[in-house]
Amino acid sequence: MLSRLFARTIDVSAHCDLPCGVYDPAQARIEAESIKAIIGKLADNDDPDFRTRAVLIKEQRSELVKHHLWVLWTDYFKPPHFEKYPQLHELFNKATKQAGAAGGKGSMDPAEGQKLLDYIAQIDKIFWETKAAA
Amino acid sequence: MLSRLFARTIDVSAHCDLPCGVYDPAQARIEAESIKAIIGKLADNDDPDFRTRAVLIKEQRSELVKHHLWVLWTDYFKPPHFEKYPQLHELFNKATKQAGAAGGKGSMDPAEGQKLLDYIAQIDKIFWETKAAA
Amino acid sequence: MLSRLFARTIDVSAHCDLPCGVYDPAQARIEAESIKAIIGKLADNDDPDFRTRAVLIKEQRSELVKHHLWVLWTDYFKPPHFEKYPQLHELFNKATKQAGAAGGKGSMDPAEGQKLLDYIAQIDKIFWETKAAA
Amino acid sequence: MLSRLFARTIDVSAHCDLPCGVYDPAQARIEAESIKAIIGKLADNDDPDFRTRAVLIKEQRSELVKHHLWVLWTDYFKPPHFEKYPQLHELFNKATKQAGAAGGKGSMDPAEGQKLLDYIAQIDKIFWETKAAA
Amino acid sequence: MLSRLFARTIDVSAHCDLPCGVYDPAQARIEAESIKAIIGKLADNDDPDFRTRAVLIKEQRSELVKHHLWVLWTDYFKPPHFEKYPQLHELFNKATKQAGAAGGKGSMDPAEGQKLLDYIAQIDKIFWETKAAA
Amino acid sequence: MLSRLFARTIDVSAHCDLPCGVYDPAQARIEAESIKAIIGKLADNDDPDFRTRAVLIKEQRSELVKHHLWVLWTDYFKPPHFEKYPQLHELFNKATKQAGAAGGKGSMDPAEGQKLLDYIAQIDKIFWETKAAA
Repeated sequence: MLSRLFARTIDVSAHCDLPCGVYDPAQARIEAESIKAIIGKLADNDDPDFRTRAVLIKEQRSELVKHHLWVLWTDYFKPPHFEKYPQLHELFNKATKQAGAAGGKGSMDPAEGQKLLDYIAQIDKIFWETKAAA
Repeated sequence: MLSRLFARTIDVSAHCDLPCGVYDPAQARIEAESIKAIIGKLADNDDPDFRTRAVLIKEQRSELVKHHLWVLWTDYFKPPHFEKYPQLHELFNKATKQAGAAGGKGSMDPAEGQKLLDYIAQIDKIFWETKAAA
Repeated sequence: MLSRLFARTIDVSAHCDLPCGVYDPAQARIEAESIKAIIGKLADNDDPDFRTRAVLIKEQRSELVKHHLWVLWTDYFKPPHFEKYPQLHELFNKATKQAGAAGGKGSMDPAEGQKLLDYIAQIDKIFWETKAAA
Repeated sequence: MLSRLFARTIDVSAHCDLPCGVYDPAQARIEAESIKAIIGKLADNDDPDFRTRAVLIKEQRSELVKHHLWVLWTDYFKPPHFEKYPQLHELFNKATKQAGAAGGKGSMDPAEGQKLLDYIAQIDKIFWETKAAA
Repeated sequence: MLSRLFARTIDVSAHCDLPCGVYDPAQARIEAESIKAIIGKLADNDDPDFRTRAVLIKEQRSELVKHHLWVLWTDYFKPPHFEKYPQLHELFNKATKQAGAAGGKGSMDPAEGQKLLDYIAQIDKIFWETKAAA
Repeated sequence: MLSRLFARTIDVSAHCDLPCGVYDPAQARIEAESIKAIIGKLADNDDPDFRTRAVLIKEQRSELVKHHLWVLWTDYFKPPHFEKYPQLHELFNKATKQAGAAGGKGSMDPAEGQKLLDYIAQIDKIFWETKAAA
């Protein structure tokens, strides 16, 4: 618990002295966790109206994940990052495609939600490496 | 760095086994950090078009902070929480009002942005206490 | 009919000389009436595609009710109001929770829609008392 | 005051037994009142950042007025209404154009805000006539 | 056909000296094509979750078609256009109503999607005539 | 040029049998033309309120360009396309960055708007090649 709060404080102070604004892959991750949780609930429930709401909300979350990832890819990452991490373009493309897959047809499979979280974790790792190197 | 990643993992596993969905005050905090950062940049820049964009984006961020806080207040917190934390209603009301103040007239004062972050930190502390107690 | 138009004119002139902008609980009420009407239509119709649209639109209306109420609670009502009406925080919290309940799982019960309208009527009554006292 | 509350109750019961959903020109009117109020405040204030926020919010309100009017014109009014009120198409077109004018260049003139409210009052009158005739 | 395509090319370069900005009925047409395509897919698929997503996305597209048409009707077309094309008000009203019909109850009939495209084609023809005449 | 225009006509009729839905780079192009037009108008006008509106609308258009390009990049283009056009990832990244640049600080230079249109034209060319090859 203490370590979490401590880490959080570090983030905050790191953000403020940056000229390029505030970015955090946590925004995409939180929405992706929501998708995975919704898939879990869909498995337990056959009520059509419940499923409608779940599918609708999952679709919205999927759009939010995509949006947060697109913003990182376009606004945060710069040419030197793409040179240092040549896989970064493809990683973002796969992650946003996976947000669509987990939010769409494949969405009843919990593994699809986890796969999305795994892609985001890879992006998160690179993101914080570039922050540490800045 | 390690402690941050570790804590993050704890969050993720804590979210998934909850029946009431995924919530995280980090969403409000990240947008509030953005407001504070924008106030900082406004102090350094007299270009009218830059100021227009900054004021516009700050206004949007202010709406996002309010929205994320409102969702927590209405959807996450339940009557037993409000009994245990009798200050919680007022705290949320002050925090959302402060989001408006930091996004609006008072917004050129960096202290307004920090005050918003302080309110969110208080909410964050209570939020994680209720999660730990669940 | 005459009385309605007359009252409306009073509202308009009352709004313009206020420094704090234009607010009206009617915005939340109109969306809540829509929720109640949709629940009524859902009871009469088993077509799955119709139900999907109805559930979707009801969900959106629920978000709009919450938004209009949150704006009143944060932007219109001030500390002196909360002192004079100590139940106001809880009333808004219950009303926005009810907007979620009537828009969500409990939504097939017409009584849920009416309960939402009743909460909004209570808020409306207090709102116009504060306007009259201003 | 009594007459207003009474009239309001009539509205509510009139809405619920309609098969075509809930409509109310009050939605457009409330946003238009906001535009007129903002124009009034702009006249009193030369602070560039305040003006930016006012212009931004007025622009949003203008979009909301247009949206509420368009919905009435497309979704509520039916061919028999347009036959009975041959001026209705042009009235809506002028009203939505005026929403743009009051939200845009002409917006510093309070008369533009009032002109928008006058158009909406004309629509409101016809709207309630068609409700009474239904 | 050739003249319209030619006009399009001119239009792109001509936008900058126009006082009325950039408009193109293609925006409404592209969304309407999407509606027609979705109706086609709904006919081939009984999976309830797929249908939910399709109905949801079709509903959103319907809103987008309406919005793009409303903008043309209010912001692009001027009184002289309505004089020269006296059917224009009714054409737009029918087209936006049809966007609702194709996005709503009647939406399982591919002919409804085509009918929407036909209305938009009529508007498109008039639009480019007015551009050529400008 | 002729072949692309011809393909467009085919495309409209061909949308329905496509599994991936309806896409068209024209959506991004139309918004980008709007950005370029707004930059042109900003050069001619010193009225602060006009500039505020122009900067605000340009910012919104910039978001729309980015959104339409992101959707193409994530939802339309597939791994085989990225293999055949190895520059495609970088092209989209540059184009969306340019949408931000033309919508943001660099936005007073008409060349920035044209540069955005040039990137979109490159994407448009590849898009129609892939459609023709499908």
